[in-house]
Amino acid sequence: MERFRHRAADELRPCKIHRKFQKYPAGSVLIEMGNTKVICAATVEERVPFFLKGTGEGWITAEYSLLPSATGTRTQREAVKGKQSGRTQEIERLIGRSLRSVVDTKALGERTIMIDCDVIQADGGTRTASITGAFVALVEACATFYQKGGIFPVKDFLAAISVGISADNEPLLDLCYEEDSTAMVDMNVVMTGFGKFVEVQGTGEGRPFDHQELNSLLSLGEKGCRELISYEKDILGSQLVWLVGREG
Amino acid sequence: MERFRHRAADELRPCKIHRKFQKYPAGSVLIEMGNTKVICAATVEERVPFFLKGTGEGWITAEYSLLPSATGTRTQREAVKGKQSGRTQEIERLIGRSLRSVVDTKALGERTIMIDCDVIQADGGTRTASITGAFVALVEACATFYQKGGIFPVKDFLAAISVGISADNEPLLDLCYEEDSTAMVDMNVVMTGFGKFVEVQGTGEGRPFDHQELNSLLSLGEKGCRELISYEKDILGSQLVWLVGREG
Amino acid sequence: MERFRHRAADELRPCKIHRKFQKYPAGSVLIEMGNTKVICAATVEERVPFFLKGTGEGWITAEYSLLPSATGTRTQREAVKGKQSGRTQEIERLIGRSLRSVVDTKALGERTIMIDCDVIQADGGTRTASITGAFVALVEACATFYQKGGIFPVKDFLAAISVGISADNEPLLDLCYEEDSTAMVDMNVVMTGFGKFVEVQGTGEGRPFDHQELNSLLSLGEKGCRELISYEKDILGSQLVWLVGREG
Amino acid sequence: MERFRHRAADELRPCKIHRKFQKYPAGSVLIEMGNTKVICAATVEERVPFFLKGTGEGWITAEYSLLPSATGTRTQREAVKGKQSGRTQEIERLIGRSLRSVVDTKALGERTIMIDCDVIQADGGTRTASITGAFVALVEACATFYQKGGIFPVKDFLAAISVGISADNEPLLDLCYEEDSTAMVDMNVVMTGFGKFVEVQGTGEGRPFDHQELNSLLSLGEKGCRELISYEKDILGSQLVWLVGREG
Amino acid sequence: MERFRHRAADELRPCKIHRKFQKYPAGSVLIEMGNTKVICAATVEERVPFFLKGTGEGWITAEYSLLPSATGTRTQREAVKGKQSGRTQEIERLIGRSLRSVVDTKALGERTIMIDCDVIQADGGTRTASITGAFVALVEACATFYQKGGIFPVKDFLAAISVGISADNEPLLDLCYEEDSTAMVDMNVVMTGFGKFVEVQGTGEGRPFDHQELNSLLSLGEKGCRELISYEKDILGSQLVWLVGREG
Amino acid sequence: MERFRHRAADELRPCKIHRKFQKYPAGSVLIEMGNTKVICAATVEERVPFFLKGTGEGWITAEYSLLPSATGTRTQREAVKGKQSGRTQEIERLIGRSLRSVVDTKALGERTIMIDCDVIQADGGTRTASITGAFVALVEACATFYQKGGIFPVKDFLAAISVGISADNEPLLDLCYEEDSTAMVDMNVVMTGFGKFVEVQGTGEGRPFDHQELNSLLSLGEKGCRELISYEKDILGSQLVWLVGREG
Repeated sequence: MERFRHRAADELRPCKIHRKFQKYPAGSVLIEMGNTKVICAATVEERVPFFLKGTGEGWITAEYSLLPSATGTRTQREAVKGKQSGRTQEIERLIGRSLRSVVDTKALGERTIMIDCDVIQADGGTRTASITGAFVALVEACATFYQKGGIFPVKDFLAAISVGISADNEPLLDLCYEEDSTAMVDMNVVMTGFGKFVEVQGTGEGRPFDHQELNSLLSLGEKGCRELISYEKDILGSQLVWLVGREG
Repeated sequence: MERFRHRAADELRPCKIHRKFQKYPAGSVLIEMGNTKVICAATVEERVPFFLKGTGEGWITAEYSLLPSATGTRTQREAVKGKQSGRTQEIERLIGRSLRSVVDTKALGERTIMIDCDVIQADGGTRTASITGAFVALVEACATFYQKGGIFPVKDFLAAISVGISADNEPLLDLCYEEDSTAMVDMNVVMTGFGKFVEVQGTGEGRPFDHQELNSLLSLGEKGCRELISYEKDILGSQLVWLVGREG
Repeated sequence: MERFRHRAADELRPCKIHRKFQKYPAGSVLIEMGNTKVICAATVEERVPFFLKGTGEGWITAEYSLLPSATGTRTQREAVKGKQSGRTQEIERLIGRSLRSVVDTKALGERTIMIDCDVIQADGGTRTASITGAFVALVEACATFYQKGGIFPVKDFLAAISVGISADNEPLLDLCYEEDSTAMVDMNVVMTGFGKFVEVQGTGEGRPFDHQELNSLLSLGEKGCRELISYEKDILGSQLVWLVGREG
Repeated sequence: MERFRHRAADELRPCKIHRKFQKYPAGSVLIEMGNTKVICAATVEERVPFFLKGTGEGWITAEYSLLPSATGTRTQREAVKGKQSGRTQEIERLIGRSLRSVVDTKALGERTIMIDCDVIQADGGTRTASITGAFVALVEACATFYQKGGIFPVKDFLAAISVGISADNEPLLDLCYEEDSTAMVDMNVVMTGFGKFVEVQGTGEGRPFDHQELNSLLSLGEKGCRELISYEKDILGSQLVWLVGREG
Repeated sequence: MERFRHRAADELRPCKIHRKFQKYPAGSVLIEMGNTKVICAATVEERVPFFLKGTGEGWITAEYSLLPSATGTRTQREAVKGKQSGRTQEIERLIGRSLRSVVDTKALGERTIMIDCDVIQADGGTRTASITGAFVALVEACATFYQKGGIFPVKDFLAAISVGISADNEPLLDLCYEEDSTAMVDMNVVMTGFGKFVEVQGTGEGRPFDHQELNSLLSLGEKGCRELISYEKDILGSQLVWLVGREG
Repeated sequence: MERFRHRAADELRPCKIHRKFQKYPAGSVLIEMGNTKVICAATVEERVPFFLKGTGEGWITAEYSLLPSATGTRTQREAVKGKQSGRTQEIERLIGRSLRSVVDTKALGERTIMIDCDVIQADGGTRTASITGAFVALVEACATFYQKGGIFPVKDFLAAISVGISADNEPLLDLCYEEDSTAMVDMNVVMTGFGKFVEVQGTGEGRPFDHQELNSLLSLGEKGCRELISYEKDILGSQLVWLVGREG
C-alpha cells in the first residue's frame, strides 16, 4: 500500500518547530509533524516537590492534553469528566521520564520545570511529537537561568518517534492516524543524541512479533530520531546547541 | 495614564481572526485581540440533550479552557484538579447563552453545536474574544449543513467586548490584563448586529459606579461591538454574510 | 397581564427579615420575599486565606445552596452529585463580590466572615434575596467584635433585587418564579445606600434589549433597592444603623 | 449533675412539630426537640429504582444534611468538599431503613418517596429527630395519593429517640449536645406504635456497658418513643391517624 | 430449617486465624470464619492526626474493602467508582470505634495504628470477622514497640459476632450469607474480654422485634464472643496474652 | 553483587501458582514469585461493552490494585483518595492488552471476562506476575463455558517477566524490589507460547542503553517466559493444556 503523498516507508512526515510560540513561558514551541500539531511549553518554578526539598536537586514533570477539537470526532474534555484518562496519565509519565533521562537534576538546582504539551491537532504520533517539541522548549527554558561557567542542566539531545508494522507487514516510520489505527505492531522509540535508547515500547496490537521484526522497527526508529535531532540542532541555533552537554 | 502603544481610550486592540484554523471541526478560528489568542471551534453533533428529544429543536453549548501556559504565572490544569472552577463555568454559561440569543434553534434541527474556546494566550478579555471568535466558527459550522432555501440558523451578527473604568477614572475600551487588574469598574457587553444588548455585566470591583459612568461604558461597548461586527463581515466574506439572517 | 395578588409592576413582594434566626452563628436572619425564603448566616473565623496572611486584612466569602425540597420539582442535592453546579458557583461569586464592595477589609482585621445562604423555599429572586439577607447578617456579625472608637467594617448599606421585561413587554420589579421563567429580559441589580451600582447583570433570555429598556430596568432596580435598604434600617434598629459607615 | 432547665433524667425536651412547613413537597414538617431543629420533607416521585421496575412495589430513601450554620462551630458544606461524609451516609441509611420498616411497599405502588432531612440547628439527637419528623411528613405525603378503600402504605407509627449514660453513670433520655459529647454510652432506639424495636444501636463511647445498663437504656428509649408517638397522633389529627394501618 | 453441615443454632462456624500473614505490616493476620476470609493488617505510623498533635495521645483508624472477586457476583471496585460506599464507611467507623474502646491512647503515645481489613472471600459476617481479626493484628503491632515496664496499649480482649432471627423465627449465631440475606432481624455484637458490650447494633430487616427476642440475641452474641476470645488467646500465645491489660 | 539466596543472574525466583484460590469467580489463582503474591481472578459476565453489542465478539478487561498493607511502607487506598493513580491505570491497560493478544474474541462470544489482580504482597514484578497469574485464571474461566467441538477462546500460552540492568551493569532476570529500585535499565517482556513478543517495554531509569544491552535483556526475558510457560502447563494439567489453541 502506498503511503499518503508518496511518502517512503522510512520517511518522516514534514517536521516544523516554531520557537518562542507563546509570550509567558520560559520555553514554548509549536511542533508540527505532518498534520499533528502540539504546543509544548516549559515553565520554570522556583520550588521542588516535597521529596526533593533541601537536596539541591530539581525536578521535571509533564502534563499532556488534547484540545477537544483536535481529533476527528470531538474528544470529551477531561476537566468536564473530572479526571484524566489512563491514556493521558501514561503519556504524561512517558514524557516526564524521557526528559528526565537527559537532565542533570543537580545542575537544575531546586527548580521544577513544568512541561505542558497541548495537542492542537492530532494525526498520529502525538506523544512522540510532544517529547521532541518539549525537548526544544526545555532547552529554551534552561537557557533563561543558566549562568555562564556552570553545568548546563540538559546533558544530551533527545527525540522520539513512532514506528510500526502495517497490516501488509511492512515496517513503517512515523505513522499517521490512519496507519496507526490499522497497524499490527506499534512501537515508540525515544533516543539520545549519543544514539542510545531511553524508551522502547513495543506492542503487538494485531499480532505478536518476532525478534527480527523488532530489530527492523528499532532501525527505523533510530533513523527517525537521528533526523529529528539534526533538525532540533538547526532550530535551536549554534548558541543553544553549544549549551547542551556543557560541563562548565 | 497613557495606554500601551499609544492606544486611545476608545480604541480596540488589533483584532485578527484566522478562519479554518483546525482540520477536523466544522468551524474553527484563531482569534487574536492584541496578545489574547483563543482557538474557537464549532463541532456539529447529530443529537440533542434529552430535554429536546423529539422537539425538532437544536442546542448550542460551550466549553472554555485556558492552556496552563497561557497565563503570566502558569495556571493549574482543571483536568488535574478534577474539576472546573466557578470562573470557568460562569464563562461557559455566558458564551453559550450569548450564542443561543442569535440562533433559531428550530432552524438548527435536532443538532447540538459544541463550541470549544481554548485560550492559547491570555492578556485580558478572553471571554469576550471567545464569544466573538465562536460566532465566526458557528457561522462556518452552520454553513456545512445548511440547505439552500431553508432558514439559516444564525439570525444576526454577534460580538462582545470588555470595557472598564481605570484607576484614574477614565472609561476604557478593550482592557488588556494589566488595565483589567487595576480597573475600578469592569463590564462585559455582548451585542447583536442590529445594535441591541444580549448581555450587560458590570461589576464595581474597586468602587461602586453611578448611572452616568454606566452610560459611558455602554457607549464604549457599543462602539467596540460595532467595529468587531464590521470586521467579522470582512472575514466571513460575502457568501457567509449573505447567509446570516436568511429566512429562506 | 395582571400580577399575582394585584401587585403593581413596580411593587416589591412583601419582604420580612427575621433577625437572630439561629443560635450559633454571629449573624443569622431568615429573609422572606413573598414565597422565597432564605436563611442567611454570617460566621466569624479568626483566620484568613493564605494570600492575606500577615496583611492585616480580612476576607468575606459566601456559599449558597438550595434545600432539595425548596423547589417545585425536587432539586438533586449537590453533596450527592459530588459537585456544585456552575449556577451555584456563579451565585456564590456574586454574593461574595457584592458584600466585599461595602466592606473595609482593613477594618475587618485578619478575620474571615463566611456567609451561608441556604434557600428554604424558592420562588424567584433567591440570589438577590440572599444578598439582602446576608447584608443584615453581616452587620450583626461585625457588631459582635466591633470595638468602640474603631472603624466599623461595613461602610455602606447594600441591597439587591431582580427586574425583568415580561413576555408582553412590561418592565417588572421583583419577579416571582413564574414571571422569571417567561421573562424576555432578566436583570439583577445590586446597589449601595449611597445610590450607586455594585453589580448590573442583564441578560436577553428571550430577545435582545435596547438602551431605553435597560434604563427602565435600572430605574425599577433603583426603586426596589432603595425600599429594601429603608426596610433594612427598620430591622437593624438605630444602634446597628448608627454603626454602618462609622469611621471611629 | 442536674440537667439544663431542671429536666428530669427520663424527661424529653419540649417537642414541637410544625406541619405543612414548605410549599412544594407533598409532606413537610419542621420538628424541634429543644434547640435541635430539622426540616423534614417527603417528595413523591412516580418512578422506582431499576431493581423494582415492573414489580409493582415502591421505595423510600432518605437524605440528610446539616446547614453549615447549624452547629456550634461552622460545619464545612459537603457539596464543597465534593462528597458526603461517612457519618452522613450512615444516618441516611438509618433513616431510610427505619421508615421502610413501617411501610407496605406493595401498597405504595411504583412510587419513590424521597425523604429530605435538613438540620437547621443541631443540639444533639438530630438523627432521631429526623426519623420522628420524617415519619409525619411521610404520612402527609402518602395521604396525597391514597385512594379510599385501598391499603394505606404506612402500617404503623414510628418514633426515634437517643438515650445514654452520663459521665456520672446516670441513664438519661433525649441527650442534648453537651450531654451527648460527654456520655459514656450512647444509644439510638427506633420503635413502632405497637411497641416493638426497629433499630437498637448502642455504643460504648467512653467505656463498655453491661446487660443491666442496656436494659435501663432500652426502658428509657421505650418511654421516649411512646410519648413521641402520642404527640405525633395529636399533630396528625384524627383523619390522618385513622389512615395509618388502614387495610382497605 | 437445618443449618449447613448440621451446625447447631448456637454454634460458630470453624474459625481459623493465621498470624504473621504478610511480611511488611507490624501486625497481620488472615482470619477465616467458615468461607469468610479477611486479611487484617495493622501498620504503625509515627504521627497522629492534627487534632492530637502535642497531646501525647495516639489514634487508631480502620479501612475496609472487599476484593471485587470476593463476592458471589463481582463487586465493583470503589477506586474505579471514585468513592467509597456508605456501607463501607459505616463498617470502617464501626471497626475503628470498637478497637479504640479497648485501647489506652495515652499508652499508645503519639502513634497512629492503621488497620486494613481486606476481604478476600465474603460469606456473611465480614465486619465482625474484621473486628476479631484486627484485634489480633493490633496486639501483634503494639508488641513491636512496647517497652517492658510500660502500660500495654491494649487494655482488654475484644471480639465481634453477628446474630439474627431466621425467617422461621429461630435465633441463630454467626450467620452465613444465605442465612443473613433472609433473616428477619440482624444484630452485630462486639464484646470485651471482661464480658461487657462495646457495640450492639440490631435491625429489624424483615419485621420489628420485641424485648425477649433482643435478649435471646444478646445471649447468643455473648456466647459467640466468649468462644472467639478464648480462641484469640490460643492463637496469641502466652507471651502476648500476658501483655494485654498490662499496667506496667 | 551476589543476589539474595545465591540466585543466579538468569534465574527466576521460586514461582508457585495455587489454582481455585477463591470460591466465587470462574477462575482464581494465587501466584507467588518469591515474596510477591497476587490474587488473580477471572469473572465471566454475559454482556459486552456498548461498542461490541451485536458483533458476536467478547472483551477482556483488567483491574489491578495493591492492598495498602502489601508494601514496605503502607500505600494509601485509591478508593479513599477517590481515584486510581496513573501507575495503576498503566498496569491495567498492559494486563488487558497482553491477555487480549492471545484471545480469539469471536470464540469468546458476547461475554466480558473481568480480570482482577489484587496484590497481597509486593516485592517487585507485580505487573508481570499479574499477567502470568491472570493467564491461568483466564484459562480456568474459559473452560467453564467452553463447549466441546468449538474453538477455545485462548489461542496460545502467555507469560510475562521483568528484566533489568543492575547498578553494576549486570543483566538480571526477575528483579526483586530492592534490585528494581536501583536498576539502571528496567524492562518488562510479555511473550506467547509460540515464542513471540506481545509487549516489550524498556526504560532507561538510570541511564540510556544500547542495542546490545537491549538484546541481552530480551534473551533473559525469553528464558524467563519460556520457563514460566512450562510451569503454567504443569499447573493447568493435561486437560486444560489440551484446550489452549483448540480450533474445534
